[in-house]
Amino acid sequence: MTWTVYLSGEIHTDWREQITQGAQSHKLPVVFTSAVTDHAASDGAGDVLGAESSGFWRDHQSSKVNGMRTRTLIAQCDIAVVRFGDKYKQWNAAFDAGYCAALGKPYITLHDEGIIHPLKEVDASASAWAQTPEQVVAVLKYVIDAK
Amino acid sequence: MTWTVYLSGEIHTDWREQITQGAQSHKLPVVFTSAVTDHAASDGAGDVLGAESSGFWRDHQSSKVNGMRTRTLIAQCDIAVVRFGDKYKQWNAAFDAGYCAALGKPYITLHDEGIIHPLKEVDASASAWAQTPEQVVAVLKYVIDAK
Amino acid sequence: MTWTVYLSGEIHTDWREQITQGAQSHKLPVVFTSAVTDHAASDGAGDVLGAESSGFWRDHQSSKVNGMRTRTLIAQCDIAVVRFGDKYKQWNAAFDAGYCAALGKPYITLHDEGIIHPLKEVDASASAWAQTPEQVVAVLKYVIDAK
Amino acid sequence: MTWTVYLSGEIHTDWREQITQGAQSHKLPVVFTSAVTDHAASDGAGDVLGAESSGFWRDHQSSKVNGMRTRTLIAQCDIAVVRFGDKYKQWNAAFDAGYCAALGKPYITLHDEGIIHPLKEVDASASAWAQTPEQVVAVLKYVIDAK
Amino acid sequence: MTWTVYLSGEIHTDWREQITQGAQSHKLPVVFTSAVTDHAASDGAGDVLGAESSGFWRDHQSSKVNGMRTRTLIAQCDIAVVRFGDKYKQWNAAFDAGYCAALGKPYITLHDEGIIHPLKEVDASASAWAQTPEQVVAVLKYVIDAK
Amino acid sequence: MTWTVYLSGEIHTDWREQITQGAQSHKLPVVFTSAVTDHAASDGAGDVLGAESSGFWRDHQSSKVNGMRTRTLIAQCDIAVVRFGDKYKQWNAAFDAGYCAALGKPYITLHDEGIIHPLKEVDASASAWAQTPEQVVAVLKYVIDAK
Amino acid sequence: MTWTVYLSGEIHTDWREQITQGAQSHKLPVVFTSAVTDHAASDGAGDVLGAESSGFWRDHQSSKVNGMRTRTLIAQCDIAVVRFGDKYKQWNAAFDAGYCAALGKPYITLHDEGIIHPLKEVDASASAWAQTPEQVVAVLKYVIDAK
Amino acid sequence: MTWTVYLSGEIHTDWREQITQGAQSHKLPVVFTSAVTDHAASDGAGDVLGAESSGFWRDHQSSKVNGMRTRTLIAQCDIAVVRFGDKYKQWNAAFDAGYCAALGKPYITLHDEGIIHPLKEVDASASAWAQTPEQVVAVLKYVIDAK
Repeated sequence: MTWTVYLSGEIHTDWREQITQGAQSHKLPVVFTSAVTDHAASDGAGDVLGAESSGFWRDHQSSKVNGMRTRTLIAQCDIAVVRFGDKYKQWNAAFDAGYCAALGKPYITLHDEGIIHPLKEVDASASAWAQTPEQVVAVLKYVIDAK
Repeated sequence: MTWTVYLSGEIHTDWREQITQGAQSHKLPVVFTSAVTDHAASDGAGDVLGAESSGFWRDHQSSKVNGMRTRTLIAQCDIAVVRFGDKYKQWNAAFDAGYCAALGKPYITLHDEGIIHPLKEVDASASAWAQTPEQVVAVLKYVIDAK
Repeated sequence: MTWTVYLSGEIHTDWREQITQGAQSHKLPVVFTSAVTDHAASDGAGDVLGAESSGFWRDHQSSKVNGMRTRTLIAQCDIAVVRFGDKYKQWNAAFDAGYCAALGKPYITLHDEGIIHPLKEVDASASAWAQTPEQVVAVLKYVIDAK
Repeated sequence: MTWTVYLSGEIHTDWREQITQGAQSHKLPVVFTSAVTDHAASDGAGDVLGAESSGFWRDHQSSKVNGMRTRTLIAQCDIAVVRFGDKYKQWNAAFDAGYCAALGKPYITLHDEGIIHPLKEVDASASAWAQTPEQVVAVLKYVIDAK
Repeated sequence: MTWTVYLSGEIHTDWREQITQGAQSHKLPVVFTSAVTDHAASDGAGDVLGAESSGFWRDHQSSKVNGMRTRTLIAQCDIAVVRFGDKYKQWNAAFDAGYCAALGKPYITLHDEGIIHPLKEVDASASAWAQTPEQVVAVLKYVIDAK
Repeated sequence: MTWTVYLSGEIHTDWREQITQGAQSHKLPVVFTSAVTDHAASDGAGDVLGAESSGFWRDHQSSKVNGMRTRTLIAQCDIAVVRFGDKYKQWNAAFDAGYCAALGKPYITLHDEGIIHPLKEVDASASAWAQTPEQVVAVLKYVIDAK
Repeated sequence: MTWTVYLSGEIHTDWREQITQGAQSHKLPVVFTSAVTDHAASDGAGDVLGAESSGFWRDHQSSKVNGMRTRTLIAQCDIAVVRFGDKYKQWNAAFDAGYCAALGKPYITLHDEGIIHPLKEVDASASAWAQTPEQVVAVLKYVIDAK
Repeated sequence: MTWTVYLSGEIHTDWREQITQGAQSHKLPVVFTSAVTDHAASDGAGDVLGAESSGFWRDHQSSKVNGMRTRTLIAQCDIAVVRFGDKYKQWNAAFDAGYCAALGKPYITLHDEGIIHPLKEVDASASAWAQTPEQVVAVLKYVIDAK
């Protein structure tokens, strides 16, 4: 069986690469999926449909296009990993976590100890809280490899 | 028909009261529900089950107790209103929005223009974006009263 | 038991009133629900949230506000009646019918013989096709009163 | 991952071919599915089961046969594209859109600017509105290729 | 709590009345629901929509009208009782049993010992098999009254 | 795409073989599935778990074992064909039809004209009624091959 | 809003009464429901349907009758409390907990510290673990009264 | 078609191997899945995320990690086998059975005659009760091979 793991959240550090490489080094049968992580491309995802002068509607149009990708991939994943950095709002990451929770899709949060308190509702519905990508890989290895 | 509207998010201003009073002044047949909004009570919701020395597990225990209330009330509401202030993380509000989205539960976001961009995914799944409690009341009046 | 019947579609003739009065004259235990049927109000349902210069986004904003009402009421009804006149596009009526079909919600179509062919997919998923409001009332009386 | 895209609606122009060829030219991993688009074959889909003298029941019988195909393919698709021309009623296209909306299946509408207003409810539940097949291909490329 | 019990199947003996009276004599908080049990009315349920010359389509039209009642009531019941006599085909009763099984709705079968074998699949998904209306009442009393 | 078609009902004639061969002769991409059709094996499906002296419990035990197969295969099929002969009770076939109806799984009934009336509820929820295996093959060919 | 709380598990101590009385003393708007807790009545729940000589089938028949009550009440509750004593197997309590978990129904476990380890999977899906009925009442008061 | 069978419960005897080898010897197209059955590894599944001093939270953390594996595999299986030994509590096995029951997933129980009574609710929702691994293999062979 191949497992599908969706990687949600922060796009400014290389945590996705660390997890992907860690999984490869253990030869885990995992396919990783993700939103489009190119910030500018994501913000302009809907521009091809027509330029919008209003900031709200440009964002709206792009987010709906992005949603076609993210909702499909979340619905198909077996496990999600949701990453929160300590800067930025990252409301989309918390939104994805809530979305997973309502679908009964298990997810792992990945964040530092410093933001435990504001993330308490997000963590309470999570299957695990990891502080490093290495821990995520170790958990995936255990869950998938059963050893 | 009585409508049930769940009020999620920020607890430092009186937006809940403004919406509740606005609805009453229009005699709308609405019941408003909400998480426990007393900050200290909410943080210590699980303390009666045993004091936890670890911050993570205390938060965990309390959030799970709170979740019994919030998930039940979200599942029962017809419409949710999700409020974001400009300070604070409010990841629980974004989490609730994602939870509503996955359930197909319509929600209205309530936030200032200044945070449109970080909230774009949350707004893209919303049925309406309002900037003031008055606008929320006006939308509820239209939706519920049909006039 | 009180039955709830959602009346969808054409707003230029008095078919809603005819059905409502017919049901009353038979003292059927029915509550009728409906979208907002005031054309101008419906088109401007979202204007309170901010005037939009673009026709597309004004329509978008209003339709999403209307959707909070229509989706909630469709989800709560026991039976829907979907009316098609012979002018107008009435794509929203066909949309409601498809929505009902996917939810497994039974619906009755109400339209003239002249538009049987273009409505064949809509009728194929319907529980009944009526040509007059009187027929709809007769069917409701039978289904609800069991005599 | 291979994506499945269902193409619904108008059958008098070559928009399906344009989208299919556009996807091929970008080597997108997409399988396109569709209702039977041969008008006469579709109208007579049920004739093998017995000739019906009544127009209504002939249409009924054929539409139910067609429904076995369309419902199965819509349920299996990841994304739908729903095309509206400016002639014809195309209630079946709006029906498909409503069906997708109730299933939470994302769809893209494809139509000219001239019919924005009558399609506002259909567009309000869509993930994107495109005016040309090229735009549809561009959106699919972005969503599927993530670049 | 009031329980709703749907009574499905054979219409030639007074088993419905026996169960209803038995429940009343024990003052059980039960509402009984049922299809239309007047044979002629049921067969002609759709005639008001237009007379059909073909037997198949007349039956089709009437059965779809009846289905609006039966499906709604089955979906709303807590428990169903499905009665099979030893004459007649009663495929509709077996159909209702299969419908209940797929919905996870518990049902009690009511039939003589002589038809155990042909009903084995129907009984295998049932919560109980009773041979007399008195037994059905006794089971309902236990389940509802808890004593 | 390969379609899966479940063949339910009567086991005394060779209708399954006719449909299977018809599909093969048209090279349709179909996998046919079915309950165990060996009558004696099916009746004794549970005997390996212990001999039961009571007819009811022997039937019960076997039917539950058979149910593991039939429910799994019905849940996985795209289309079911439900065959009724003119002898026998075949309540299991009607049960399967009701089960499909509740799951929203399309099915084709296959039976002679003589039993239209007792099958009217089963037919009313069907996507097609065929009188011969050849008609079933023709419908499958149209639905699957789209030509 | 009235909350419904299902009390599952051990029947040899008065924990149900303690919780019920605690809730009454706080005037909580709660309805408590439960399986039949009279041991002998529960074991013989199906005897009215016919005496079974085999222990397995007598248990089977009675458990299915009991299941009509327990599944209906679990499906209707907002919260369940699942009690484990330190004697007895109480597999039905663990079964109910798993049933709740799959339905997404929140539950509180009630058991001593001594059996934490064998209950770890049951507790991991619970919303709270309480050691005394007083703690359960305190949690219900907080969740329901919001103060 | 390949069938997936989930093996739940007792880990102190070699029943999993017996079933697996039995299935292989019959060349059944089955993939067997299971929780991690190494007792120490399972108890420490969450230790990589941080050592917990409290027994309750260590168990909690590990059980949630294990749950990512078990819930995913149960959701994907066609049939489950749930084994109860006569020692140990095995509440997790009963929990899995309840979880399967709520999902409508068929399962076979495997246990001795001596514990029929305490397992009566678990058995009442099962599709079969087997006393030996050989019987489980025989049932799987029948269900899967249809001969």
